[in-house]
Formats: sequence, C-alpha cells, structure tokens
Amino acid sequence: MDGNAPRKVVVAVDAMGGDFGPTAVVPGAVAAARAEPGLALALYGDPDTLDAQLDDLGARDLPIEVVACRDRIEMGESPAAAVKGRPDAPIVRATRDHREGRVQAVVSAGSTGAQVAASLMILGRLEGVDRPAIATGIPTLNGRFLLLDVGANVQCTPEHLLVFALLGDEYARRLMDVETPRVGLLNIGEEPTKGTELCVQAHALLRDAPLNFVGNVESRHLLDGAADVVVTDGFTGNIALKLVEGFGGFLQTAARQFLAGGAADAGEGLRGLLHRLDYTSTGGALLLGVRGSSIICHGASPARAIQSAVLAAGRMARLDLPGLLQQRLAGRA
Amino acid sequence: MDGNAPRKVVVAVDAMGGDFGPTAVVPGAVAAARAEPGLALALYGDPDTLDAQLDDLGARDLPIEVVACRDRIEMGESPAAAVKGRPDAPIVRATRDHREGRVQAVVSAGSTGAQVAASLMILGRLEGVDRPAIATGIPTLNGRFLLLDVGANVQCTPEHLLVFALLGDEYARRLMDVETPRVGLLNIGEEPTKGTELCVQAHALLRDAPLNFVGNVESRHLLDGAADVVVTDGFTGNIALKLVEGFGGFLQTAARQFLAGGAADAGEGLRGLLHRLDYTSTGGALLLGVRGSSIICHGASPARAIQSAVLAAGRMARLDLPGLLQQRLAGRA
Repeated sequence: MDGNAPRKVVVAVDAMGGDFGPTAVVPGAVAAARAEPGLALALYGDPDTLDAQLDDLGARDLPIEVVACRDRIEMGESPAAAVKGRPDAPIVRATRDHREGRVQAVVSAGSTGAQVAASLMILGRLEGVDRPAIATGIPTLNGRFLLLDVGANVQCTPEHLLVFALLGDEYARRLMDVETPRVGLLNIGEEPTKGTELCVQAHALLRDAPLNFVGNVESRHLLDGAADVVVTDGFTGNIALKLVEGFGGFLQTAARQFLAGGAADAGEGLRGLLHRLDYTSTGGALLLGVRGSSIICHGASPARAIQSAVLAAGRMARLDLPGLLQQRLAGRA
Repeated sequence: MDGNAPRKVVVAVDAMGGDFGPTAVVPGAVAAARAEPGLALALYGDPDTLDAQLDDLGARDLPIEVVACRDRIEMGESPAAAVKGRPDAPIVRATRDHREGRVQAVVSAGSTGAQVAASLMILGRLEGVDRPAIATGIPTLNGRFLLLDVGANVQCTPEHLLVFALLGDEYARRLMDVETPRVGLLNIGEEPTKGTELCVQAHALLRDAPLNFVGNVESRHLLDGAADVVVTDGFTGNIALKLVEGFGGFLQTAARQFLAGGAADAGEGLRGLLHRLDYTSTGGALLLGVRGSSIICHGASPARAIQSAVLAAGRMARLDLPGLLQQRLAGRA
C-alpha cells in the first residue's frame, strides 16, 4: 500500500487448470507477458510440460518462472477436502504463495469450487466481510457493468448485499475507470417496495450508504448499461449471468445459420432473429390456475400483438383450458 | 367440457387498455376476427369511440359486439380497490361476464395488477391451486418454451412449484402441440442438491410427480430449448423474462447501428456483436472480499481469455486491490 513507487508484482497462474490445460493457459500467459513487459509471471504445474512449452513458444527471455507442482485436484473432488489434502496442487500452492507475499494475484481456469475454497481457507476474508462475492463484468451496449454475487452465496442477507455494493463500487472506481459508479439493486420493479423481503431491506440499507445508489434496476435494463455495479444474491446473479452467456450461444448458432449464406443474407437473417425475440410478436402471458382464461398483454402491445393474443384466447376458450387444467389437478388425488 | 360439438366461444377484449388504447387494440381485434371467421368478439369500452373505429375499419359485418363501459382504472390505483370499486371498468365487467359464461376468455393490455386482481377475486382459483402463476412463452432456437411463474408470486413453496409444473405441462400438451413436455426446474446447477432450499425440495417433489421431469435446467441452456416447460418462483422468473426482453432491445439497438450501413456491413457488425457477448473475451470473474486477488476463469477459456485474465490480475495487484477494499470497508466504521 505504498503510494509512491509503482508496486512490482508477480501474477501466479495455475497452468494445469481449465478444459484445455497448459495448451491454452501457457500461450495465454506468454501473450500477457509480451503485451506488458513489466509483468512477471509464475506458472504453477508440471515443470517438464511447462518448460517444454516455454521453449516451444520461444518465451525463455520473458520474466516467467516455473513453480513445480506434482499434485492435482480432480473435478468432482470436495473443494474443502482438496485444499486441505493436496498442498502441492497448483491452485493451493499458488494461493499459499499469494498469502505469503511471493505473488500478488492468482489466475486459474480450474475448478471454481476449489479456487473459492482455497481463497477462503488460505487467504481469508477482509475485515468487515462476512461473505465474499464472485463479481464479473457483463457487456452492455456501451461498455460493461459489474454484477455480484454471481454464485458464491445462494442465500444472502441485506447486510451482505450492502457489503457487495461497497466492494463492487471500489472495484469499479479502481479498475473500470468510473469516477462515481452508479450502483443498482437487481429487482423486479423500480419502486422501493418491490421484490422479496431481501430486496426491500437491502434497498433501504443501500439508500443510506455512502454510494451513488440509483435504486432498483430491472433486468430488462441491465444490458442498456443502467448501472455500473449491480448487486444481487448469488442465486439470482448466477441465473442472470448464465442467461447472458446463453444469449451469446443463441446468437452464435443463429448467426452461423445465416452467415453461412454470405453477407447479403446476414441483414435478412438478423431481421428474422430480431422479430423472433420481439416481445410483441408473442401471444401474451396467461394467469394459469384461475377459473377462466385471462390473457395479459404487454402495455406497449401494437395491433399485431393484440391480434395474436385474441387468437390464442380463442384457442384456449375452445379447448376449455380451465376445465382441462382442473381435470389434470383432480387426477393428482 | 362437451367433447362432441366444437365449443362456440366469445373472446372479451378490454378495448381501452394498453399504452396505445383503442388505436392499437381495436385494429388488432378486427385482424383476429378476420383471420378466424368463426371467432366472435366482445369489445369492452367507450361505445362511441369503439363504434366509430369499427366503422372506420369497415368491420361492421364481423361478429364483434361492443359492450359499453363508462369507467376506467387509472395506472397506479390499488388493483384490489379498483376491482371492488369500479364494476363498470372494462377489465372488471369482462371478467365478470367470463365468470357468468357470457364470454369464454378475456384479453387485456391494461394494468397487469388489475387484471390479476380481477381474475383472482372474480374468477377465483381452480381447486388444488393455492397460487396461480403467470406463464409466458419465450423463444428458443427451434421454437418456444413456457416459463412460469414470471411474477405473480415473489415467494413460493416447493408445492407451489409442483402445481406450476402440472399447470404448465397441461398447457404445453394442449396449446403448444408437445406430446410429452419436458418439464425442468430453473436452477444454478444440474445436480439435485444445487440451489436454494426451495430448489432442492422442489426437485424432489417434481421427480416423484406424474411428469416428464428432466431435472434442473441452467439458464445458459434456456434458449437452446432444453425444456418445454420451466418452473421457478415469480421473482427469479421475472428477472429471467425481463432479461430476455432486454436482450431483444440490446440486439435491436446494435442491429440498427450496423444495418444502417447496408447488408454488406451486417455480417461484420454481427461478428463484432458476437465477439462482445463472447464470454471468453472477458477478463474472468473475481472473488471480492478475500485478502488477495484470485481471478476465476471459465473452464473453457482459450489462450486469449487467459491472456486478458492475467493482464487484469496484474492491474489488480499493482493497485493492491485487496488493500483498497479493506480501506473502503474501514471507512464505514
């Protein structure tokens, strides 16, 4: 924490982790060292493999040290037991070296559970932090926002969310170049009384905290960049994160289909995709479980959306959907 | 519930509801009546306005009745109070006519709260249903799946989710032409022990129910069409639904930017968008709140993803991010 001299740092890399192991990790680490000449690295893993790879990549002149680790954590092992029982696994040694000041950060693409367990058990928590959170950047139209927690804590208290907000705010100031981060609470409506008990109480805490709290953020505005930092519990955050990941895959598959036809087809294909995702082309939502059929349309429905909702209503009514549902429920008894 | 004669139905339409009111609703209803000659409609609302519009649309020969309603529910009114206090508002009259058998379904683009309240208070719940759920179709690569609850019940019990599954299953069989719907539980992992207490208990109930239960569905697979019916609590479902809606808007804005350049640019623009959404181009996730910096990369990280994570780790380390976070938390005291 010396503000004068630039801190000299070594980044530890678990070179054996990830689906592709050293074949992806070592070239990635070497590329980083080349991109930033001052950056020193330490690769943790099997020394023969790693030395051979560094030779192949012509990377012997770079400040990259190899730290020999002969053990490894298998996928499916209990993270806590692995951290205790395998001191010579790369993630465990790297994290211990981080605690002891030999390296200043750890990177791994191996088991997330083992990495989180190693961090909690070896590094420990900051004072004032009851539950550390996993934070990740998510792309928006103009940049990126930080979402946390995305999976470390399935159940949270309002106080946990407040600490997440403070951690995320500091992160955004320091690493996302945002002077006064807009901090939001992921929720299902903008009013302070919306959502679960957790949301309502967290909203009150956040409003009174030393933060630029912009209130509740509905998920429809996440990708617009409505906030720089968005806090939520680890269950909801994980659902949101993986849904965004799923969009990427959805688009990629859709794009492959129409990019195959050449650039001229891409515009047409994209229009089709947008139409598919256009909320107003669906037949509306339905309150299932009442003695009737009441189709709920979007407030912003144009004539086309009303048309499909009315046609859907006709089908439901002809089938006597409520009657069918009642029979189905009676069948349970 | 007579299986012999085709059921003759009248669909009630709240003609005054929605952001655009009768100017969107009436043309939509008329288009539906034209698309399906057997379908009779009843438009609820101001008779002068509606009659004039039907004249303008040349729709006098269609089986469309106007039901005069002189009252209206304002946005922001308490839904329950409005349903009790405004018997002549379109949604209230239409729902009452539905209960009394004069119409067989109701369509509205007005206040969702008022529509749900009217359904619960006037139609009532089916036997065996403690909590009705709002269900809606969401597009996938190959079709559509039904998600429920998307907002009627912020807190749910495992038994509620089981009933949602039975209702959704029957709906999918009857209205989505799926013979044996695959029913899934939205969760943050595939193992039965994953997620909240609600998820774990609901998983056990669903497994033993007369359903084609395909287990937990992670949100990254929702848009792949991993299931035909996906159940969740109304908070999580609303977050997921609105994120999909937001994704449509995100794509639309992005598309407008590059479709403006003509079809030739669309392919390039799409590739850029895909790159932006590509998870592997981000710098990894971070466990915030521990005494160190441990960057969590995706298991499937290629070299490029490792490179950005290592560079990000270097930045965090040089800043002494954990030290900054600790100072920030100390500042609370």
